[in-house]
Amino acid sequence: MPELRKDPVLGRWVIIATERAKRPKDFSRVDSAPPEKECPFCSGKEAMTPPETCSLKDESGKWRVRVIPSKKPFLTHEGELWKKGKGPYDLINGLGTHEIVVETPEHIANMADLDENQIKDVFSVYCNRFKEIGKDSRMKYVLVFKNYGWDAGGGRVKHSRSQIISTPVNLKRVKEELEGAKAYYNYHERCVFCDMIRFELGAQQRVVLDEDGFVALSPFAPRFPFETWLMPKDHSPDFYKLSETSLAALARVIKKTLLKIKVLLNDPAYNCVIHTAPFRRPYPGYWSTIEEDYHWHIEITPHLTKVAGFEWGSGFYICPALPEDAAKFLRETNV
Amino acid sequence: MPELRKDPVLGRWVIIATERAKRPKDFSRVDSAPPEKECPFCSGKEAMTPPETCSLKDESGKWRVRVIPSKKPFLTHEGELWKKGKGPYDLINGLGTHEIVVETPEHIANMADLDENQIKDVFSVYCNRFKEIGKDSRMKYVLVFKNYGWDAGGGRVKHSRSQIISTPVNLKRVKEELEGAKAYYNYHERCVFCDMIRFELGAQQRVVLDEDGFVALSPFAPRFPFETWLMPKDHSPDFYKLSETSLAALARVIKKTLLKIKVLLNDPAYNCVIHTAPFRRPYPGYWSTIEEDYHWHIEITPHLTKVAGFEWGSGFYICPALPEDAAKFLRETNV
Repeated sequence: MPELRKDPVLGRWVIIATERAKRPKDFSRVDSAPPEKECPFCSGKEAMTPPETCSLKDESGKWRVRVIPSKKPFLTHEGELWKKGKGPYDLINGLGTHEIVVETPEHIANMADLDENQIKDVFSVYCNRFKEIGKDSRMKYVLVFKNYGWDAGGGRVKHSRSQIISTPVNLKRVKEELEGAKAYYNYHERCVFCDMIRFELGAQQRVVLDEDGFVALSPFAPRFPFETWLMPKDHSPDFYKLSETSLAALARVIKKTLLKIKVLLNDPAYNCVIHTAPFRRPYPGYWSTIEEDYHWHIEITPHLTKVAGFEWGSGFYICPALPEDAAKFLRETNV
Repeated sequence: MPELRKDPVLGRWVIIATERAKRPKDFSRVDSAPPEKECPFCSGKEAMTPPETCSLKDESGKWRVRVIPSKKPFLTHEGELWKKGKGPYDLINGLGTHEIVVETPEHIANMADLDENQIKDVFSVYCNRFKEIGKDSRMKYVLVFKNYGWDAGGGRVKHSRSQIISTPVNLKRVKEELEGAKAYYNYHERCVFCDMIRFELGAQQRVVLDEDGFVALSPFAPRFPFETWLMPKDHSPDFYKLSETSLAALARVIKKTLLKIKVLLNDPAYNCVIHTAPFRRPYPGYWSTIEEDYHWHIEITPHLTKVAGFEWGSGFYICPALPEDAAKFLRETNV
């Protein structure tokens, strides 16, 4: 069973994927993407994957979006949650879920190329999974993310899909965001994300898109060139509470944003992560303002540079592109 | 002039490298390493680089280690430090230094292949630069790091070198370590790193090397397969205070560790970062225990996997190798 281990200095939890444990020779360094494998995610190939957890079907009963358990899960769903110490260390058993969301029955690689209704269905499935997984009281956080392209960890099969991981701990980055947003709120009594949106819409320097209640922008202090954030203009801590109308609007805006990135940057690999408030809010005293201080959003990071090596060790990022320029280029890219 | 910008939520400073600003077409994605360029770092090619800042010479007056300003500095050294706000954001001008340490006059790519005396000289030069740069009261932190190999940001010239960056702000990762170490100390009144070393030497599960007052180990909760930390067994917050004897011992241990990684993992790209306490300690109340609670160390992270994509967005790491196995493999690799 996988283990969750905590770094005793940084407080960062790491999944030690025992089921996937590799030996030195397994780490063959592959410079360019290897040939594509047979796709198990296309319509008609359902027998190649584990049975579906759920799916969204059209009127004729054919699936449009399909959720399946990962064949090689990072975390597993069986047994009781235990936590223990070991010398100076803390660990938890690797309890959680790891699902794949197959975003289309067709063999389309990039979410940018799905039609808006299809993207809306995908986001609607995310919302449903959030609500469903949230019923398990052992789970603290649900992370929805997408690896597109070889350099972003997208693997050897080019079929648009995303992953949903639920964990019994809050993720470090989520904690940091919650704490940062709370610190800002404590001083200003305003949501830092709402302030950012207001400032950016006024300054019009880093706005990529402003449509249908959503704004896409190049953040003021990006880690990576052409990093793009997508935020709802209406304040809300919880992604999964989006209305049907907002889901449709989000689908339009995300399709446009991803298409701009694809066209401008020559179809780069990218990661996409949804940041939303944890549904377990166990410290009502400490986090009592979370409804007002946190604002869900989506972060898209294209993989364009190799220079991000030492950032892992230092937490220090050097961005070789001005976000103002990046926003201008993206804004002016017609899609 | 470059700018330092602070993310208003996470409190992370990012260098916006305006001098290096790139346009979309400049981000050509190169899958494998391009051909090597003419080496400007070899003995005899000194005119190809900016004049040296300092160097360490042998008895005949030939340089053994050479420090030069970066041709494309991330940060520059001119002018007064200014800090200002801009809407919800904070920024500082990009004041600082960015130097290249050429580690050998010979065209040798990997520090693992330098001889021990040469490595000792390199570390001795680091110490001197720490002391020298520390005299500039505007600077808060000095980061010494190394990118080896294309995948680690090592660039197109294969000549062993490292980089020294000094910054007017403390780095996020350093702050987190300081705070984590302090929290542990506040509770236990012991250094967390000393506790780790004691526990690891007792357990003998994750120790790679234990020699000459230094220990190399696979951390309990690594982010990356075969990540390796190197720590002095004697408690000290400050790397640059190492004695001559300890520098020689460190050189022996780091050479062995890097050679083990090279041999076992087929000469992988890696990053290497020195984590030491900031020499400015401006909050004597809050950081009053830093002498006791922080412990300098070196982190080495080989680049073996492509799966590290979404970790940037989530702070959530999945390590596909058991550190106990990694340590065993490295321990048993004869060099």
